Amino acid sequence: MPTISAGKLRKLQSLADAHGRFTMMAIDQRGSISAALAKLLGVAASEVPFEALVTVKAVITRALAPYASAVLTDPIYGYPYSGATIPGAVAVLLACEESGYQTAGPGGAERVSRIIPGWSVAQAKRVGADALKFLLYTHPDATEATRRHQESLVRRLGEECAEHQLPFLLELVTYSLEHAAASPEFAREKPGFVAESAREFSKPDYGVDLLKLEFPGNLKYTDEYSRGAFDGVTREPVCSLSDVEASLRKVDEASAVPWVLLSGGVGIEEFLVNLRLATAAGASGFLCGRAVWQSVLSHYPDEAAMKRVCLAESVFNWQRCVATAENALPWFDHRQYGGLEAIIPDPHAADWPRP
Amino acid sequence: MPTISAGKLRKLQSLADAHGRFTMMAIDQRGSISAALAKLLGVAASEVPFEALVTVKAVITRALAPYASAVLTDPIYGYPYSGATIPGAVAVLLACEESGYQTAGPGGAERVSRIIPGWSVAQAKRVGADALKFLLYTHPDATEATRRHQESLVRRLGEECAEHQLPFLLELVTYSLEHAAASPEFAREKPGFVAESAREFSKPDYGVDLLKLEFPGNLKYTDEYSRGAFDGVTREPVCSLSDVEASLRKVDEASAVPWVLLSGGVGIEEFLVNLRLATAAGASGFLCGRAVWQSVLSHYPDEAAMKRVCLAESVFNWQRCVATAENALPWFDHRQYGGLEAIIPDPHAADWPRP
Repeated sequence: MPTISAGKLRKLQSLADAHGRFTMMAIDQRGSISAALAKLLGVAASEVPFEALVTVKAVITRALAPYASAVLTDPIYGYPYSGATIPGAVAVLLACEESGYQTAGPGGAERVSRIIPGWSVAQAKRVGADALKFLLYTHPDATEATRRHQESLVRRLGEECAEHQLPFLLELVTYSLEHAAASPEFAREKPGFVAESAREFSKPDYGVDLLKLEFPGNLKYTDEYSRGAFDGVTREPVCSLSDVEASLRKVDEASAVPWVLLSGGVGIEEFLVNLRLATAAGASGFLCGRAVWQSVLSHYPDEAAMKRVCLAESVFNWQRCVATAENALPWFDHRQYGGLEAIIPDPHAADWPRP
Repeated sequence: MPTISAGKLRKLQSLADAHGRFTMMAIDQRGSISAALAKLLGVAASEVPFEALVTVKAVITRALAPYASAVLTDPIYGYPYSGATIPGAVAVLLACEESGYQTAGPGGAERVSRIIPGWSVAQAKRVGADALKFLLYTHPDATEATRRHQESLVRRLGEECAEHQLPFLLELVTYSLEHAAASPEFAREKPGFVAESAREFSKPDYGVDLLKLEFPGNLKYTDEYSRGAFDGVTREPVCSLSDVEASLRKVDEASAVPWVLLSGGVGIEEFLVNLRLATAAGASGFLCGRAVWQSVLSHYPDEAAMKRVCLAESVFNWQRCVATAENALPWFDHRQYGGLEAIIPDPHAADWPRP
């Protein structure tokens, strides 16, 4: 029977819904929210006030948290200010990566991640987090120095999460060394990158419990959706929908741990298709943010309008995501576990007292 | 504005229902379950097998946990074996006192408590507990040595819970130095003992977040209920119902922190009256066990029968308790806090990272 520490088991259960599916809301974004507000306010991203991020996160958290199985927020602008509006029955994940990345490698085309300065797994656990989240940029062909840096960072976090019996959710974000993120070339490269990084970082020695993965492809470049289905723009297709489905199966085979889908800033209609295909291939749900609440930002600083849009649009978007995840694989039915009844808490991990 | 550490705030919310009321199920009993099973099996309490307690706790936990806002269990027979059947949205409290007490003082009439050997606040937090529970025997007229021992034990646990930002629930159980627990004399003494101990241990330097208190009186000795209302036995009354209501008001005034009612082994009909009166006086809900599931024990080792009784009787009992607690005071509306919106997480406690 597979064993897991009692704390990790307990907290994985708290992150999922009653059926073991993850319907988790992300509001831990920092860089992307700053960028959107900067554009709106006509200032540099560095000039967006601290309070603007706090306000945006507070409005969205209060409106959407009651509908989620868990909420992912950050310890800088989010949790200290809006943590109390997350219902007690909804679990909390705390992000611990510094937003964005530092450049590295030849020509600065590679990306390395770091932990928020002054923050740690121990502090996240102490303040009440039910899980730790770390966003890692990853490229299978990065230089060895970059790969070693990223791998040792994950390994270290995995060890600390094991020590604190806190589930470790690792978000993997791939990038191209040569092409733009929205290019047809990257649409071709990406499926392999996603599968390869999932394979690497779900190896047991990293200590990852749950992967948060990109959609391995870009529907806008498929035959079926290339005629502007999502944004009105016609593109030259690079593959068919069945190729994307094959890529999803490869990702699911590559991941040795349960995985959830991220939205990565795509629109809600595209995300709903992504999610339907991903859960059909074995994803255990989603952890998504911008696809659901992106439109709220444009109403800042009008809090009343932001709340209205949250209730009118974001909750509607959210409920469609939840419905679409109905056929997600319960995390404990992933082949790593084989059913909740088969899982036992590691009898040695806690040194349980005896009578 | 009142401050509280982020971890304690988060976990207090998880212990309560969506309205801030505690509907918590206790299955952490060890001595009283052993005693009941020993009687049933015709053996000494020390001969009741380990597995018997594990089984009883597992059956009751699985049946009732889904209806509770939180479950209190123990780290010896309970949590390692049946923790995984507690839904993720239901919080977990772990008991950390050794069951029963050691005698002390003149003639051995006093009672001192101790922590489960080899167990600690740090371990409870690590394995996923959302709160720590400690049962303390207390008598206002115990010798100074006994009082100092009990007080310093609570103070130490309070400090450790503060360090780990884990809510500290202290259960206070009074006793008589001279009279039997079921005597009219103790029915007279008890209200003052309960109020006095609540006053002492809700002082801020003990670090207690929530008190679990006895009903300050005994309805069987009131004019109104003395004619066998609960058990068919007629008794000489020692007071009226309005005296009991006055005692409850004194307990509520004495407690500087939110408090919940325990059932202490009374029958369900008596407990429902206790609970109605306690919540009318300011209690924030209940943490009860035996009043709800006591009858299940008599069917051991017939697991199918135990499950049937759980579903037929215990769930019915439970739902009446929940309904009776509808008018409980939300914990954050206790005068210590003054409303959820007024509470802010202590900005210094976590050393929140800055951008």
